Amino acid sequence: MRVEILHPDTLHEECGVFGILDHPQAVGNTALGLHALQHRGQEAAGIAAVDGAGFTLLKARGLVSEVYNAKTQHTVQGTAAIGHVRYSTAGGNTEANIQPFMVHTQLGQVALAHNGNLTNADALRHTLMAEGQSFQSTSDTEVIVHLLAQSQKPTVQERLVDALGYLKGAYSLVVLTADTLMGVRDPAGVRPLVIGMLDGSYVLASETCALDMLGADFVRDVKPGELVTITEAGLTSQQLPNPEPNRFCVFEYIYFMRPNSRFGGKYVSHVRESIGAELFRESHVPADVVIPVPDSGIHAAVGYAETAGIPFKQGLVRSHYVGRTFIEPTSDTRHAGVRLKLSVNAANVMGRRVVLIDDSIVRGTTMPKIVDMLRRAGALEVHVRISSPPFAHPCFYGIDTPDKSQLTAANHSLEEIRAFTGADSLAYISLDGLYKAVAASARNTPKREFCDACFSGEYPIELTDLNKENQNIKKAS
Amino acid sequence: MRVEILHPDTLHEECGVFGILDHPQAVGNTALGLHALQHRGQEAAGIAAVDGAGFTLLKARGLVSEVYNAKTQHTVQGTAAIGHVRYSTAGGNTEANIQPFMVHTQLGQVALAHNGNLTNADALRHTLMAEGQSFQSTSDTEVIVHLLAQSQKPTVQERLVDALGYLKGAYSLVVLTADTLMGVRDPAGVRPLVIGMLDGSYVLASETCALDMLGADFVRDVKPGELVTITEAGLTSQQLPNPEPNRFCVFEYIYFMRPNSRFGGKYVSHVRESIGAELFRESHVPADVVIPVPDSGIHAAVGYAETAGIPFKQGLVRSHYVGRTFIEPTSDTRHAGVRLKLSVNAANVMGRRVVLIDDSIVRGTTMPKIVDMLRRAGALEVHVRISSPPFAHPCFYGIDTPDKSQLTAANHSLEEIRAFTGADSLAYISLDGLYKAVAASARNTPKREFCDACFSGEYPIELTDLNKENQNIKKAS
Amino acid sequence: MRVEILHPDTLHEECGVFGILDHPQAVGNTALGLHALQHRGQEAAGIAAVDGAGFTLLKARGLVSEVYNAKTQHTVQGTAAIGHVRYSTAGGNTEANIQPFMVHTQLGQVALAHNGNLTNADALRHTLMAEGQSFQSTSDTEVIVHLLAQSQKPTVQERLVDALGYLKGAYSLVVLTADTLMGVRDPAGVRPLVIGMLDGSYVLASETCALDMLGADFVRDVKPGELVTITEAGLTSQQLPNPEPNRFCVFEYIYFMRPNSRFGGKYVSHVRESIGAELFRESHVPADVVIPVPDSGIHAAVGYAETAGIPFKQGLVRSHYVGRTFIEPTSDTRHAGVRLKLSVNAANVMGRRVVLIDDSIVRGTTMPKIVDMLRRAGALEVHVRISSPPFAHPCFYGIDTPDKSQLTAANHSLEEIRAFTGADSLAYISLDGLYKAVAASARNTPKREFCDACFSGEYPIELTDLNKENQNIKKAS
Amino acid sequence: MRVEILHPDTLHEECGVFGILDHPQAVGNTALGLHALQHRGQEAAGIAAVDGAGFTLLKARGLVSEVYNAKTQHTVQGTAAIGHVRYSTAGGNTEANIQPFMVHTQLGQVALAHNGNLTNADALRHTLMAEGQSFQSTSDTEVIVHLLAQSQKPTVQERLVDALGYLKGAYSLVVLTADTLMGVRDPAGVRPLVIGMLDGSYVLASETCALDMLGADFVRDVKPGELVTITEAGLTSQQLPNPEPNRFCVFEYIYFMRPNSRFGGKYVSHVRESIGAELFRESHVPADVVIPVPDSGIHAAVGYAETAGIPFKQGLVRSHYVGRTFIEPTSDTRHAGVRLKLSVNAANVMGRRVVLIDDSIVRGTTMPKIVDMLRRAGALEVHVRISSPPFAHPCFYGIDTPDKSQLTAANHSLEEIRAFTGADSLAYISLDGLYKAVAASARNTPKREFCDACFSGEYPIELTDLNKENQNIKKAS
Repeated sequence: MRVEILHPDTLHEECGVFGILDHPQAVGNTALGLHALQHRGQEAAGIAAVDGAGFTLLKARGLVSEVYNAKTQHTVQGTAAIGHVRYSTAGGNTEANIQPFMVHTQLGQVALAHNGNLTNADALRHTLMAEGQSFQSTSDTEVIVHLLAQSQKPTVQERLVDALGYLKGAYSLVVLTADTLMGVRDPAGVRPLVIGMLDGSYVLASETCALDMLGADFVRDVKPGELVTITEAGLTSQQLPNPEPNRFCVFEYIYFMRPNSRFGGKYVSHVRESIGAELFRESHVPADVVIPVPDSGIHAAVGYAETAGIPFKQGLVRSHYVGRTFIEPTSDTRHAGVRLKLSVNAANVMGRRVVLIDDSIVRGTTMPKIVDMLRRAGALEVHVRISSPPFAHPCFYGIDTPDKSQLTAANHSLEEIRAFTGADSLAYISLDGLYKAVAASARNTPKREFCDACFSGEYPIELTDLNKENQNIKKAS
Repeated sequence: MRVEILHPDTLHEECGVFGILDHPQAVGNTALGLHALQHRGQEAAGIAAVDGAGFTLLKARGLVSEVYNAKTQHTVQGTAAIGHVRYSTAGGNTEANIQPFMVHTQLGQVALAHNGNLTNADALRHTLMAEGQSFQSTSDTEVIVHLLAQSQKPTVQERLVDALGYLKGAYSLVVLTADTLMGVRDPAGVRPLVIGMLDGSYVLASETCALDMLGADFVRDVKPGELVTITEAGLTSQQLPNPEPNRFCVFEYIYFMRPNSRFGGKYVSHVRESIGAELFRESHVPADVVIPVPDSGIHAAVGYAETAGIPFKQGLVRSHYVGRTFIEPTSDTRHAGVRLKLSVNAANVMGRRVVLIDDSIVRGTTMPKIVDMLRRAGALEVHVRISSPPFAHPCFYGIDTPDKSQLTAANHSLEEIRAFTGADSLAYISLDGLYKAVAASARNTPKREFCDACFSGEYPIELTDLNKENQNIKKAS
Repeated sequence: MRVEILHPDTLHEECGVFGILDHPQAVGNTALGLHALQHRGQEAAGIAAVDGAGFTLLKARGLVSEVYNAKTQHTVQGTAAIGHVRYSTAGGNTEANIQPFMVHTQLGQVALAHNGNLTNADALRHTLMAEGQSFQSTSDTEVIVHLLAQSQKPTVQERLVDALGYLKGAYSLVVLTADTLMGVRDPAGVRPLVIGMLDGSYVLASETCALDMLGADFVRDVKPGELVTITEAGLTSQQLPNPEPNRFCVFEYIYFMRPNSRFGGKYVSHVRESIGAELFRESHVPADVVIPVPDSGIHAAVGYAETAGIPFKQGLVRSHYVGRTFIEPTSDTRHAGVRLKLSVNAANVMGRRVVLIDDSIVRGTTMPKIVDMLRRAGALEVHVRISSPPFAHPCFYGIDTPDKSQLTAANHSLEEIRAFTGADSLAYISLDGLYKAVAASARNTPKREFCDACFSGEYPIELTDLNKENQNIKKAS
Repeated sequence: MRVEILHPDTLHEECGVFGILDHPQAVGNTALGLHALQHRGQEAAGIAAVDGAGFTLLKARGLVSEVYNAKTQHTVQGTAAIGHVRYSTAGGNTEANIQPFMVHTQLGQVALAHNGNLTNADALRHTLMAEGQSFQSTSDTEVIVHLLAQSQKPTVQERLVDALGYLKGAYSLVVLTADTLMGVRDPAGVRPLVIGMLDGSYVLASETCALDMLGADFVRDVKPGELVTITEAGLTSQQLPNPEPNRFCVFEYIYFMRPNSRFGGKYVSHVRESIGAELFRESHVPADVVIPVPDSGIHAAVGYAETAGIPFKQGLVRSHYVGRTFIEPTSDTRHAGVRLKLSVNAANVMGRRVVLIDDSIVRGTTMPKIVDMLRRAGALEVHVRISSPPFAHPCFYGIDTPDKSQLTAANHSLEEIRAFTGADSLAYISLDGLYKAVAASARNTPKREFCDACFSGEYPIELTDLNKENQNIKKAS
C-alpha cells in the first residue's frame, strides 16, 4: 500500500511569483527566491529569462531544486527573469498549465506569471474563442495573455492595462518583456506582492521571505490595484482605473505565508502569536502543557502558552526524512501515514492535560489520529484549539479547496467535530476574535480590509463564472 | 570527453505522423505505429486521444518507448488518437514545439500533427500577430492552428480547408476532433501519407511500415492535395482547390523511408536496389567485394553486387549496444566515436579491393574514418559509391539540413571530396541515373514527379520567407 | 556552484539497527523501523529477510524510502528480518560496506548488522588474513563475520559468543539466521539497543522511536554485555563472559537520539531540557528572547527559557523543501548555503538581546553565519550557549568525527571561538554540569556510567589499532 | 501488457573479461573493451583499477555505457585495470555476484574476473565452509578467491596456480594485483582469451573485437592451460601442471563471438559462411531467395546464397529503436513482440520461395512467428535452415541454457519442430557437417578439438557437482 504522506489534510495556495530586472545573477536569484516561496506551490516551477540573446524558458513538474538543477540550469539565461511555483490540481493536460506563460506577440515576446484566480475566466474565454482565438491550456492565465495580445495599444504596459480592465477576481501578476518588468495586484489586493532591492536592482516577490533568501532589502508592498513598471530607468507606479475596497486574504496570515514574512506592516509570526493569545482568552481550559502541531501550530501555541502561563513543549516531533510516498507494510497499520511524519514525544505528554494547537481543520482526516496518538502516549486530556474560524466555504480567489461536501466545518456541528476528533474539548477562534488579533479592531467596521469568505461565506468579488451555474452563492454586502 | 555517437553524419526527417479512429486500442496502436516511424524523428513523441470523456495528451522528449511507458500510459486514453514523432533542432524553448498541438476552439478541442515545413510561416505569423494573435511556440504548425481557429466556417473540416488555403510549403497533416479524423497532403505531395485499415477501422500513417507493425492492411496512398475525412460513417475524400504538379521528395526513397515501406506503387528496398544497379552501370570498377555501410547502404549494395556479379559481404559490423553517448578515454583516441558504432570485419576486407556503398555524404565527417578503418584492416583499394547525387542544397520542405557551408558537396569538387575521404575512387549516382532507377524515365520530361531540390537546387514551391531575406535562391521552372 | 546544504556542520552516527522475528509484515515493519532510525544514518540502508523460501537481501545507497520502494519491495521477503541504516564515509568501494552483511556458512546463511566501531579490527583483520581469509570490504563488521564462520562451535549463537570474545570496541549487533534473531551490546554498552514487542513478536531496535513508529510496546533496554536470543519459543538472555564498567555514550543523549526516544530510564527530551536549565544556571546573561537553532537546540532552549523566565521564540525557521543540493547563483552569495535551510524570523529578533542555543560546535563553519544573520535582522546582542562541553577529541566508538585538526575546540581557546563566531558571549555546558543534568550526580564518582571521551579525551576502551601507530592517546583510568 | 523484447529466444554467454596493465588510459580503454564485449553479457558490468593511490572498483547492473558514465567515471581510476560484463540469472542477491571480485588478502588487494563455469564449485564450497570460510555470494568465482587467499605460497601468482589446481570446469580468468596482470585459460580451453598490445602495453580480452575497438594489435591467443603473467618487465608464460585435451566451445563460433573476431586462427564470419555453404550442400531446396534472421543468420545466409547461387536479400528488417520493454496495446495483438524488433520486407518475400537462415532454435518461441510473418507477406514457401545441430543438452561450462524441458530439440522430433514452426521444410546442420565447416575434418578423429556437449551430450569435463545429484549424465569418452 502506497501512502501519500506530505499533505494529509492541507490546503494549497495555488502559486507564488518572483521577478527581477537588470541583475547579472537574475536567473540564479529567481531560483533562490522561488525556493523561498516553495510553500506556495510544490507541484511545478518555472523561470523565464531574457537578455540580449533573447528569451529562454525552463519549466517542469517538481520542486524548484528539481526543476532548476545542474543539468538544466544552462537552458535558461538572462539578466532579467520571472518565476513561478505552482500547486496544480490533478488530471488532464496540466503540463500546458505550468507557468510562466511565454508568448510571441506583435510587440515581441512576453512572459507572465500569475498568483490568484480569475472569477470570470470562462466567460472571457468563450468570448475570445468566438472571436477566433484558440487556447492551448485550461489555465485562466492564458486568458490574460490573449487579451494582452489582442489590444492594439502601442506598448505592452498599456496593453496590460487594457487586458486587466476585463478581469474579475484575484491576481498578483509579474510580467516580463525584453526590457521591462511589471508587477500588479488586483484592485481588491487579495494576494500579496512586495517590492525589494538587491544590489541596486528591483525585485518583485509574493512574500518578503524571498527577499531575505537573497539578502535583498524590503522596499514596500505593492498596493491593491497598483501596477509598478520597472525599467533600467527605475520604478514607476500607476493605479488601475477601477478601485475596489481592500480585501487581502486573511488566511494568508493564518496559514500560507511563512512565519518570517511581513506584509501590510505586520510580521506573520506576530499575527499568529496574537491569534494564539486571543484563542486563550476566548476558550481557555485548565491544562499542564501547550503543544503545537509542527510546524503549523508553533506560533499560535507560543502565543497561547505565554498568555496562559502554561509551558510550551514539543510534544510532537516532525521527521526530516519524509519523502513523497512510503510503502506501508499493511493496510491495517494504525496511523502509520501520520506517524511517518509526526511522532509523539511521550516525555511531554504522559500524565498531562494537553492543549493541542493547530491552524485549521479542513477535511478532518489527520486530527483524530493525532489526538489518538497523544492519548496512547498517556495524555490525560486533549483540548484542541484552532487558530482559524471554521473553514466552511470554498475559496474562489486562488486557494485550492476541497469540495464543500468534504469541508468538515461545512457539514458538521462543533460538537460533532469534537466527537469525531476524540478531543475532550474543541474550540476555534471566533471571526471577531480573529479580527481583534490581526487588525486590533472588530470585523464589522468600515475599515475592514480582509477577505474572510472561507469563514463567512461573504464573497467580496463577483463570482461571474460560478453564478452562471449556481445562483445560491451569497454575494458579500 | 563525451562523444555523441548516434548521428555522426546524418540528416533528419523532421517528423512522422499517425492517426486512427474508432478502435478500442487506439492509443496503444498509435504508440506501436509511432515506434515503427521512429526513424522519422527521435527527439520527441506525442499522442493525443479522445473518447467520450474528452481529450488527453501525452508528449515529451524521448523515444516513443520512453514517452509512452508503464508509468505514463494511463494519462492518455481514447478510442481515437493521433501521434507524432519529431526531430527537433537544438536550443530555445523546444518543449513548446513538441506535437501534437492540442487547442480549445469555438468548435471544441482540436489536435493536430504535422510532417513537413511551411515556406511562408513567418509571413503568416506576422500577419496573425498584427491581428492580435499570440504564439506560444516557434513552430510553423501553430500557424495552422491559429488560421483554423480564426475561420468562421461552421465545421472544423471547412475551417481546415480555409486554413490550408493560406499555406505554402510541404505538409502531411493528421487532425483529430471529438468525432473526426482528417488527413491531408499538400498540393505538391512532398511528404508521404498512407491509408490503412485495422479491424475495420481506418488508420493514417506516414509510411506503410507503421501499418505492418499493427498488422493493418494497406489501403492506398493519400493523393497530393487530397483531404480525407474519416468518421464513424466511413472515409470521404476531397481535393484542395489549388492543384500543383506532383513533387514527392525523392530523398524519401533514397534515405528516409524504411526499406520495407512502399509508396507510389514502389517498395523502397526495390528502388534502392535499382539505384545500386544503376550506380554499377554508371561507375563500375574492378573489385573483389561489395560492402555496405550498415544499415544505410545495404540495399544499394545488394543491387550493385548482383548486377556486378561481385560478392556482397558484411565488412562493417554494427553494434547493438550503442546508447546516445559514451565516455571516451582520451580525446586523441583514433576514430573511437565511429568504432563504438561500427567495427570492421577484417575477414571480408583484408587483401581485397572493396566497393563501399553508402546512401549519402552530407558533412563528410564519417566517411574518411570508415575508409581509414578499412585500409588498416588490409583493404587493397577502397572505392566509395554513393546512391544519391551530391547533396549540395538545403531542404526547406521538412528535412533538417546543415548550413550550406557545412554541405561538403556544396563547397568541394568531386576530386576534393575523394581526396578528403582517402578513397581510391569516389562516384555518386547521377541525377538522370537516379530518375532512371526510381521512375524508369529521364528527369526532364513532363511526367517528372519528384522534388530533387537538394541535388538540383531547383525549388518547386515558393520560398516566401526565405526570399524576403535572400533573392538568390533559384526558383524552379 | 553546487552547495551541499544538509550537513554543513554536523556529526554522523554511523548506524542504526533493527530486527524482528516471526511477524507476517516483518519486512515492511523493518522498513518503517529503519525510517524512524533514519537520523542515525542517511547514506545507505539495507534489509535482510528470511522465511521458508530462504534469505533475501535489499541494500543500496539512499534513504530508506529510496531503497525500499514500490519497485524494490518485492525483492525482499520474509517473516523475520533485520535492517540497517548507515552513514558511510566518502571514497573507495563503499558499496561493499553497506549492511546487513549476509554470508553463507557451514551452519547456513547468517545476516548481521552493526552499530558501533571496533578498536581492534585492523589487528584482527591482519591475523585472519595471515590465516588465509580474504576480505571483500573495509568494514570492521566483516571481521565479526569471519570470526563467526571460523568458530567450530555447533550453533550460530555459540559461534557468535566465540567471535565476540575477540572484539574490542563498541558494538550493538543484530544477527539473523533461518530461525533465530540475536541482539547484543558490547560489555561497556556504548551504543543503545532496546527490546520491544509488536503483536506478540519480539522487536530489536537502536532506539524506542522505532518501536513507536510501529505501534510496538517498549519492553526494556538490552543490558551492556547482554546477548538476547529470540526464537519461536521466546527470548533468552545471557551475559558475555568479559564484563566492563558501563560506558554509554553521553553524546547519544545530547545529539544523536531522537528527542522522543527513551533509554536508560530517561526521555531524551527531558535530558536535553535539564541540560538547558543547567546551562542557564552556569552561564546566564541578561536577554530578551531564547532562540534555538532548529531542530537541534529546541529542547535545551525550552529548558533554558523556562528556568530563565525569558520567552522562548522561533527566531530561525527551517525550510521543509531542502533537498541534498541546490545550485547557487554565484559563489559570492552571502551565506546562501545556510539560508536555503534556515531563515531568520526578524519579528522575534529585531531590537532584542538573543540567547541562541545549539547542541554543539564541531568545525564551527555554520555558527558564524547564523550569528551574522541574526545581527543583520536587528538583534542587539547574540549570546551563544552550547548544550555540550567543547568537542575536542575524536570518537573511535562509532561516531564519524572530523580530523582533530578540524575540531574547533581542539585548536582554539573559548575566546578565539567566540571571536570567530562573532557572538557577544559564548558558553558551553561544563562536563560536571552535564553530568548533573544527565545523571543528577557529579562526574568523578564510582557510579559514573558514561563515555565522555569526545569531551574529556579519556577513552574507556582500549584503542588497539590506533595505539600501534600512535602512543599519545591517553588511556582512561 | 509489458513485453520483453530483447531476448525472445536467445542463449546467454555468461561473461566477457578484459585486462590492461601500465597504460595511462587503462580505465577508459577497459570501458571501451567491455563495450566491444557487451554481447557476452548485458546485465551487469564492472571495472577494477589500481595505481599508486590504491584500488578502486565500479560495478553495477546495466550496460557498460550505463555503468561507466559521466557521473561515475571518476570513482574508478588507475593505470592498470580489469573489467567484466555479465549475464546474470534472475533472483536472489545477485548484486553480490557482479564482478570483478575484489578482495583484501595477506598479499594485498587482488581483483579477479571470470568467464566460464566451474563444475565442482559446490563441492569446493562445502569443504571451504567446513574449514571456517564464509561466502558473500553464490558465484563460483568466489571459490577461486578463497582458495587463492588460503594458499600459503609467497606470491599471488603461485597462490593462483595453487588455487587453480583444485578447479574443474571452464574458466578464462583475468587477475589484477597492485603490479601484475594475469590471464589464464582452463586446461581444456573451453572459453576464449586473447592477448593484444596497445601503445606498448599488454591487453587481455575475451575476443579480438575488443582489441579492434581500442585500435590495439592482436598478439596471439592464450593457450589452453596457459597462465600469462604481465608486469612492467613484460609477459611470461607457464603451463598449468594438469593438461587436458583441447575442447574449445564450438558454439562460440556459431553463436557467441562477434563475426569480426578471430580465434584459433579463424575469422568467425568465415566459419559461419562455411557452415552456411555446408548447410546448402546438406539440405538444399529449390528457392528464389535466401533471407537471414538479422543479425544472427547473416553470415551463414551469405555462405548459403553464394554456394547456392540464389540471391541473398534482406527480407527481415531490424529496428534500431528497440529498448528493453514496450507497452503493447492488448494481449491479443498478433506477434507484436517480434514485430517491434523485426519487420518483414514484403518486397523481397512476396511470391518467392524463401530459404530462411538462423543460427539456432532454442525454445522455439520466435521462429513460428517469423515464419507466419513471412507467409502473411506473401512467401510461397518457407524453408528454415539452422546453422547449428539441434541444441538438445544443457551447457555446464558457462552458457546459461534453459532447463532441458524447455529445449525444443531435447523434447521433439525434427518433424514435430517443423510442424510447430509452420515451415515447409526444416533442416539443421549435422554434427559432422559442422566439423567439416569449422575444422575441415570429420568429428571423430584424434584431432577433435571442440566441446560440442550441447549437441552431442558428451561432456568432456567432469560434472562433479551435478553427478552428486544425478548419475544419468553421460560422461564423454
